[in-house]
Amino acid sequence: MTSEFKATRRVEFSETDMAGIVHFSNFFRYMETVEHAFWRSVGTSVVMTQFDPPLGLPRVHAACDYKRPLRFEDTVEMHLRVIEKRARSLAFEIRFTRITPGPAEEVASGKLVVVCVQKNEDGTLQAVPLPEAIASQIEVAPDAQP
Amino acid sequence: MTSEFKATRRVEFSETDMAGIVHFSNFFRYMETVEHAFWRSVGTSVVMTQFDPPLGLPRVHAACDYKRPLRFEDTVEMHLRVIEKRARSLAFEIRFTRITPGPAEEVASGKLVVVCVQKNEDGTLQAVPLPEAIASQIEVAPDAQP
Amino acid sequence: MTSEFKATRRVEFSETDMAGIVHFSNFFRYMETVEHAFWRSVGTSVVMTQFDPPLGLPRVHAACDYKRPLRFEDTVEMHLRVIEKRARSLAFEIRFTRITPGPAEEVASGKLVVVCVQKNEDGTLQAVPLPEAIASQIEVAPDAQP
Amino acid sequence: MTSEFKATRRVEFSETDMAGIVHFSNFFRYMETVEHAFWRSVGTSVVMTQFDPPLGLPRVHAACDYKRPLRFEDTVEMHLRVIEKRARSLAFEIRFTRITPGPAEEVASGKLVVVCVQKNEDGTLQAVPLPEAIASQIEVAPDAQP
Repeated sequence: MTSEFKATRRVEFSETDMAGIVHFSNFFRYMETVEHAFWRSVGTSVVMTQFDPPLGLPRVHAACDYKRPLRFEDTVEMHLRVIEKRARSLAFEIRFTRITPGPAEEVASGKLVVVCVQKNEDGTLQAVPLPEAIASQIEVAPDAQP
Repeated sequence: MTSEFKATRRVEFSETDMAGIVHFSNFFRYMETVEHAFWRSVGTSVVMTQFDPPLGLPRVHAACDYKRPLRFEDTVEMHLRVIEKRARSLAFEIRFTRITPGPAEEVASGKLVVVCVQKNEDGTLQAVPLPEAIASQIEVAPDAQP
Repeated sequence: MTSEFKATRRVEFSETDMAGIVHFSNFFRYMETVEHAFWRSVGTSVVMTQFDPPLGLPRVHAACDYKRPLRFEDTVEMHLRVIEKRARSLAFEIRFTRITPGPAEEVASGKLVVVCVQKNEDGTLQAVPLPEAIASQIEVAPDAQP
Repeated sequence: MTSEFKATRRVEFSETDMAGIVHFSNFFRYMETVEHAFWRSVGTSVVMTQFDPPLGLPRVHAACDYKRPLRFEDTVEMHLRVIEKRARSLAFEIRFTRITPGPAEEVASGKLVVVCVQKNEDGTLQAVPLPEAIASQIEVAPDAQP
């Protein structure tokens, strides 16, 4: 059973803005980086073409609280935890910690809510339960506060 | 007194993702588009170099709820409203409506909270009141729910 | 017969980098802005779903020479000209001129080469001639130097 | 003496477009990823604040030829080689090879030309020679064709 995942990345120049810090919208891209690595850690891509019709996980909610700036070439750890698990949706918390240069400091904290959908042949999307083979590997983190 | 602003944009190809829709992170860039136009409508850039030391408006919170997809070449209206006004911070709600192709439909709804800071010579940021000349032009929208 | 198109845009905050100028990669996004507007001006989207199988115009070459920086809230004009027209491909030159704040100055000059392809049912792409109904509306600009 | 550097990255969802492939503009961001790693490999950041006045390396030319598409979760190797070295500028070639899923295939080939500039106190930029301590560590790759 998996309830969390950690990934790190180094801030790229193209992710900064004229204020000299990571543009706030890029924290949402960083959230996806660790979320998609989480899905790989339970044996699937977020793009679930192994099912027929194919399944996907569009976001229905995203949020972020910003505490400290991140700068070019900083190393940031994204710590994802499952904070809510329903038949058709999952909620994740993602904590961002600057690792280098140290000392380690929390810089931001985000949330993503994703819904499992199947893509019908006519192009419509329909919410469906997350397949049991995948859902059975995922559990809510022990101390989660949704 | 200003409490709202509307802007439109046409979805660019580079803003879509492999799901064929606008990537969720780009809604946060769209929020800035209308927010920065709002600041120009009250006579200032969001980058307030007319003050010494210069002032800025970093975001401390951002959130978005996604209801329907936006696609390439859709025209979307961003309707920003001031929903909270404090000495040092402002909260905005931004509603996204697809205008073309019609009929008009709300596709998403977002929130931004920005704090007024001055940039000291040593590089530190310090929260300060929004200058009166600017603050006096801004009021909370009549039916705002912060 | 159409051989050129002009569009303008205002530089967004999210398009700048920590050097305080538009990140060089964004000039390629700006090139697409005016190119896609050019396609609309000859009556089609760059995504040609009106044909069966659908046609597209992937880029096979892109280049840019940078002369002066572009900054936040500058207005830039993108002037696209057709500089080469072949059965299966088109080459465009795109000149970037800062319009405000003035005086107008050329800031960069780019090139895009696109190829017309059909997307077969098995997912493969195959270069095909640009449909006559579209090709007949496009001509090389008078003084073009491919 | 250093004349090349290799880095790999996994394609992110946010880097794809509605054609299901990496947007062409993102190859220029990938070029920077390996170029900035190259600078770190010779002991400096591309942002050279260790000098007074500080030095930087703005791009004056960028180009890319696209051969095959890159897709979500592909692993791509960027192989940078120094192809020209002058007192004030360097030219790099960057070859993109899809590593997974295999077999390895070249997908694109790019070029960057950067100029060493110092940032004067009045904000102007001035081309200057690359400092000897850095330049002395860099040489043109054996079989380079500028």
